[in-house]
Amino acid sequence: MKRVYNFSAGPAVLPEEVLKEAADEMLDYGGSGMSIMEMSHRTKTFDKVIQDAESDLREIMNIPDNYKVIFVQGGATTQFAAVPLNLMSKNKKAAYIETGNFSKKAYQEAKIFSDNVRIVASSKDKNYTYIPDCSSLAIEPDDDYVYICENNTIFGTKFHTLPNTCGKPLVSDQSSCFLSEPVDVSKYGVIYAGVQKNVGPAGMAIVIIREDLIKDDADLQFPTPTMLRWKTQIDNGSLYNTPNSWSIYVCGKVFKWIKAQGGLVAMKKRNEEKAKILYDYLETSKLYKNGVEKDSRSIMNVVFTTGDADLDAKFVEEAKKCNIVSIKGHRMVGGMRASIYNAMPKEGVMALVEFMKKFEKENLQ
Amino acid sequence: MKRVYNFSAGPAVLPEEVLKEAADEMLDYGGSGMSIMEMSHRTKTFDKVIQDAESDLREIMNIPDNYKVIFVQGGATTQFAAVPLNLMSKNKKAAYIETGNFSKKAYQEAKIFSDNVRIVASSKDKNYTYIPDCSSLAIEPDDDYVYICENNTIFGTKFHTLPNTCGKPLVSDQSSCFLSEPVDVSKYGVIYAGVQKNVGPAGMAIVIIREDLIKDDADLQFPTPTMLRWKTQIDNGSLYNTPNSWSIYVCGKVFKWIKAQGGLVAMKKRNEEKAKILYDYLETSKLYKNGVEKDSRSIMNVVFTTGDADLDAKFVEEAKKCNIVSIKGHRMVGGMRASIYNAMPKEGVMALVEFMKKFEKENLQ
Repeated sequence: MKRVYNFSAGPAVLPEEVLKEAADEMLDYGGSGMSIMEMSHRTKTFDKVIQDAESDLREIMNIPDNYKVIFVQGGATTQFAAVPLNLMSKNKKAAYIETGNFSKKAYQEAKIFSDNVRIVASSKDKNYTYIPDCSSLAIEPDDDYVYICENNTIFGTKFHTLPNTCGKPLVSDQSSCFLSEPVDVSKYGVIYAGVQKNVGPAGMAIVIIREDLIKDDADLQFPTPTMLRWKTQIDNGSLYNTPNSWSIYVCGKVFKWIKAQGGLVAMKKRNEEKAKILYDYLETSKLYKNGVEKDSRSIMNVVFTTGDADLDAKFVEEAKKCNIVSIKGHRMVGGMRASIYNAMPKEGVMALVEFMKKFEKENLQ
Repeated sequence: MKRVYNFSAGPAVLPEEVLKEAADEMLDYGGSGMSIMEMSHRTKTFDKVIQDAESDLREIMNIPDNYKVIFVQGGATTQFAAVPLNLMSKNKKAAYIETGNFSKKAYQEAKIFSDNVRIVASSKDKNYTYIPDCSSLAIEPDDDYVYICENNTIFGTKFHTLPNTCGKPLVSDQSSCFLSEPVDVSKYGVIYAGVQKNVGPAGMAIVIIREDLIKDDADLQFPTPTMLRWKTQIDNGSLYNTPNSWSIYVCGKVFKWIKAQGGLVAMKKRNEEKAKILYDYLETSKLYKNGVEKDSRSIMNVVFTTGDADLDAKFVEEAKKCNIVSIKGHRMVGGMRASIYNAMPKEGVMALVEFMKKFEKENLQ
């Protein structure tokens, strides 16, 4: 059995301990005589799995009591629709901040439902290499929410200061930075994340919603599929239908792993250390460039390029031979991208930098 | 490690061979050095997983070329909304046949989007213990489709003759009978199934759609979330966003297992044999009753009761001690339910009948 250093942007590396436990329990979870995949979601055993997952997540993130947590299918992309469907009131107005592909897609999805959504800030002018100044946005009195994608997986940027929403609820897609560092949940109206980047198996999103934003069916402005109604999911404890029980189970293990590592404070320390190794080297390198503005850097997704597409391709190929895989950048950016989520060990980043140095030496003209 | 006979209605028993393979490959799928859960869905390796899954499914079900197959998140319940959203044309009319809880829920979901949906046949009058005669339904010329739930998990009934739809497309929820026997796909407009009963891990549905029913975005009658648009999923090979890759992977293994067992003809033979053991015994028993009309019986979900709630509860408890678990009936019906999907071995059914006989002997007054 071999293991590689997997820099995939998602689905992505998971803690080896978690994988081993899942393998060990595959035929008999906790003495039940069956896999968690074979178990009714209405059993006491599964109920404990989902309850533990929620309470561990609440503990890790320090989620205030006036926020609800749901585990729902469809990934973050389904939430692109759920956000306007659940949050829009009569005037159906919302302000979006465009900092990359996923905030743009979320905006376009909202436009399906209303013409009154606007982009109030954008970093499109410089191909999303920075986070725009959001201290004074054109928020309107009847805006239902302000929307951001907090960490931009493709472009390697992150909000380090939250926008001034003029008191409107902030909705944040945290997919690629979820649980990477402590956040003050009380500053948000809604936080959501597809789990497949930093938490667990694809096919699920976690949504954290401030209670006062939860609408009764009668107050929804659109004919809304039941499965996309947050209140339905909340009222049924995420068990309105059969949930992605495997993902809940693995995510639950990852939450326990995070706690054992020292929680989000420890995660942040580790993640900043890992990112610093890479960024420090990139600053001194004569071959590679990271085009992101320094104060907009992501500590989860680090993008870089040699500036030469052929050389980039050679990098990706040769890296593979050194067990450094899934490092190719997104086609919108090109070059390379090292996604260094929670489960990427420091050794992986050090191995990458060693390889980068060797490759630089061999290929710098 | 113990294994039980798991009669759960879903999530449900999976082939032990499949579970063992999944456990073995947990840290290193096919020499990739990572779990399938950690792998980008844009890799060649995962592409082969999803392509193989689709081609094996097409082979098993003999799906004609003019049908598309998609693997989508959200389970069958999300399709309750996707069906009207994708199939309704200008008049938004559809005919539903009500044979239990899930057809009723599908009907209610369609009512969210249109007042012009009707129940054209129902077995509600006898608590869904039979499939109504559907040879002459009040189908209207502008009905967009006729809807059935083909096997009723809770009530233990199944359509053995498809309704006469007067040429309208038949939409069938096959969740609890999917791949249990051969079907003539060409008789359907749309077949869909939540996979967690007879195929794989929860959190996914498989949808099979006749090409001529696939609408362009411009022809949709409602503001439709992108993730629920069949055409979007088809055009992107089920990879519009990150799919439930774990479920696709396990389902793919189950498809290969079905092929190795001899395909759907062999499945049917085995499933009929298993069901016959149970039904034959129920016919002779003085303690248990199966209230379902004989020609409406399901071969997947066999319901029975002693007629005494306390005795039923005692049955469930004592069965557990004999490693016969998840046999309690749904609260809408009470009593017991033995779900005997493809992966339930004949030995499991024989063990159940042995236990039933013993319990009958001990408890028959």
